Amino acid sequence: MTTPLRLGIAGLGTVGVGVVKIVRQKANLLATRTGRPVVITAVSARSRDKDRGVNLSDFAWEDDPVALAKRDDVDVFVELMGGHDGPAKDSIEAAIATGKDVVTANKALLAHHGQALAEAAEAKGCVIRFEAAVAGGIPVIKSLTEGLAGNEITRVMGVMNGTCNYILTRMQDSGLPYEEVFAEADALGYLEADPNLDVGGIDAGHKLSLLSSIAFGTQVDFDGVELEGIQRISIEDIHQAADLGYKIKLLGVAQITGRGLEQRMSPCLVPADSPLGQLKGGTNMVVIEGDAVEQVVLRGPGAGEGPTASAVMGDVCDIARGLRITTFGVPAASLEKAKVAQSNSPAPYYLHLTLQDRPGSLAKVATVLGDNGISIDRMRQTRHNDTNAPVLIVTHKTTRAALDAAVDAMTETGVMANQPVALRIETV
Amino acid sequence: MTTPLRLGIAGLGTVGVGVVKIVRQKANLLATRTGRPVVITAVSARSRDKDRGVNLSDFAWEDDPVALAKRDDVDVFVELMGGHDGPAKDSIEAAIATGKDVVTANKALLAHHGQALAEAAEAKGCVIRFEAAVAGGIPVIKSLTEGLAGNEITRVMGVMNGTCNYILTRMQDSGLPYEEVFAEADALGYLEADPNLDVGGIDAGHKLSLLSSIAFGTQVDFDGVELEGIQRISIEDIHQAADLGYKIKLLGVAQITGRGLEQRMSPCLVPADSPLGQLKGGTNMVVIEGDAVEQVVLRGPGAGEGPTASAVMGDVCDIARGLRITTFGVPAASLEKAKVAQSNSPAPYYLHLTLQDRPGSLAKVATVLGDNGISIDRMRQTRHNDTNAPVLIVTHKTTRAALDAAVDAMTETGVMANQPVALRIETV
Repeated sequence: MTTPLRLGIAGLGTVGVGVVKIVRQKANLLATRTGRPVVITAVSARSRDKDRGVNLSDFAWEDDPVALAKRDDVDVFVELMGGHDGPAKDSIEAAIATGKDVVTANKALLAHHGQALAEAAEAKGCVIRFEAAVAGGIPVIKSLTEGLAGNEITRVMGVMNGTCNYILTRMQDSGLPYEEVFAEADALGYLEADPNLDVGGIDAGHKLSLLSSIAFGTQVDFDGVELEGIQRISIEDIHQAADLGYKIKLLGVAQITGRGLEQRMSPCLVPADSPLGQLKGGTNMVVIEGDAVEQVVLRGPGAGEGPTASAVMGDVCDIARGLRITTFGVPAASLEKAKVAQSNSPAPYYLHLTLQDRPGSLAKVATVLGDNGISIDRMRQTRHNDTNAPVLIVTHKTTRAALDAAVDAMTETGVMANQPVALRIETV
Repeated sequence: MTTPLRLGIAGLGTVGVGVVKIVRQKANLLATRTGRPVVITAVSARSRDKDRGVNLSDFAWEDDPVALAKRDDVDVFVELMGGHDGPAKDSIEAAIATGKDVVTANKALLAHHGQALAEAAEAKGCVIRFEAAVAGGIPVIKSLTEGLAGNEITRVMGVMNGTCNYILTRMQDSGLPYEEVFAEADALGYLEADPNLDVGGIDAGHKLSLLSSIAFGTQVDFDGVELEGIQRISIEDIHQAADLGYKIKLLGVAQITGRGLEQRMSPCLVPADSPLGQLKGGTNMVVIEGDAVEQVVLRGPGAGEGPTASAVMGDVCDIARGLRITTFGVPAASLEKAKVAQSNSPAPYYLHLTLQDRPGSLAKVATVLGDNGISIDRMRQTRHNDTNAPVLIVTHKTTRAALDAAVDAMTETGVMANQPVALRIETV
């Protein structure tokens, strides 16, 4: 096979430029590894004149990514524009309709339209590859789909939004409150145009829904992900968790239970000395548990030009080598609709209550917990100087339903000065 | 493709039995994932009558693995016998000669004969896959060969012998000396029949030589691996290293320098709070550094029935899916002979000296270091009750050559009571 593999790249932001650099600078290495030249024939982006620091004059230019996707001299349409509808979706559909393979970094698009796109691609004999969409440079899709194909996957967990992890570790290290660190992250350009995609857990939730599909053979079900962002995490909770031996992470967990598929993306406590607890800054980590392999932990940069371009190129090299696999690891038609189970697998919880400082408050709260079948592992009331008493409780394992019922009942007692904070403690 | 993929399994120890269980218990899952049934048609092992806890009566039996390898009803020869010559080599050669694909967990065989076997396989259009040969259940071969194919790999490091890591962490945790922990490990069945394969670093060196080949496109060169075992690591050095903020690990490092390929497998100090430093017991870890991806860290169980069978089945599933790749990621003919560079890239070193306790000893040693261009980062002389004074030195970055020269010169001063211990401090 010495026919070149011809790429058309739509989107020339950081990642697109990274891909151009790799294809150009490593032409010989890529040809040796894949057995054929890998070349770029055409590109598309919003602005033709912007200086991107790379010479694009060798490539045909298309203003319209759909036109790029349809070009006869493109074998693989590389979509790096982003957005879960609009040009990204239109152009990928056009690429598939004209028989092109697709490589994309677009988690939002696949989280919303993955099933339909996978079916369309498989009907045309095309592949859609998306290693760059999940956990940046970490080859997690490949590990899960191929390397661990002999396993029944039991649980997948991950810290997959570098911005949130940056904010949480920066709060921990600096002692600064959420609002200040959020402003810092914004100034550093770490946040999406809509910051809620990051701090609201949506971006990480997109990624989790893709991993779930591969892990459990279910159709991507982003709507089934229980989402909770990090906006309400206070510096006090970070310090209290640390005192108890935990770190707070925006952690995604997907697992199959007797009741169906649980997917949640939420701030959790994890042991400070666990691999997840030790993760700092923008680094991502995915933990895969399978019945044969036990536990595999993958760690690497979650974003950035080089790492994301590395993931894109891994997919491109597979296609160049003739390594062709269905989008989610099994035929799209065989993916079952996920039976959504409200996340209710038992876990210990961290409870941060603010009680009115008067006799009997603590007794009322303790009674409510007991009435809901929740037993207390550890409790501490910290020193305070005002009329409210902060109380920290680590429960024994309980369900979210029991916990929610207890929190409601506590509120009705009239002794709570504030809305309780309840965070799951995830065993790793 | 609904033709079954037919496996012939040679070797029914722990891993072989694990593979039998997966193929049997997950027939539907494997068929859905790979698009075709995966079945076992024939098996071979030393003793037919041994009770292995699995029913083998559905499979044809061969006493001779070479006969198994040649059978017409076998598509993939799964070699799980071990040994770098003899039946393993003969049967793999027979499998290739008769056009079978090969999946093996045999690092020793590939470390010694990988190049010849890869050339033979490629001449016949067969593949040889060996995920299980390196780092147990971790999909590291796949990550390096495929997922990171867009990278120029700059360094590969790993803790890849679970037995050594068990011994070193157990020494650290228990305070017991090497000999006692070695005896424990032996009693637990953790050691190879020839323990030197483990504690001498040979097994881990085999694995490193395979990773080097894939990472750098060079022919497997096990003879080029500088090997140093853990037999001389004392409990005192473990404690001293811990006091300085380090852990001692049997660490493999392969990197390309201007002078050629450096491969070393030796006890090193790594920062206690680094991912490598935190690795406990039989867990393996591989760190891959590439120019685009920066650093990816993979962690998982390094041995055992389930994890190793998981790796074998990952390879089997690839073959069933038609994902075919050359043994070392590029055509065997294009692998260059490695230019062996004696390991001399600069690093700080840990020096544990035992000096005769008399005036001027320390001055002589310090002078020798200075004369060899080695500057001291930290030094401490610990309290002692006999006639010899233990002195610990952490040097600034220096080369192995300068260090060896200094150690020789120190010995000539006549002030040394013992052979110095010199361990590289690896930056992670």
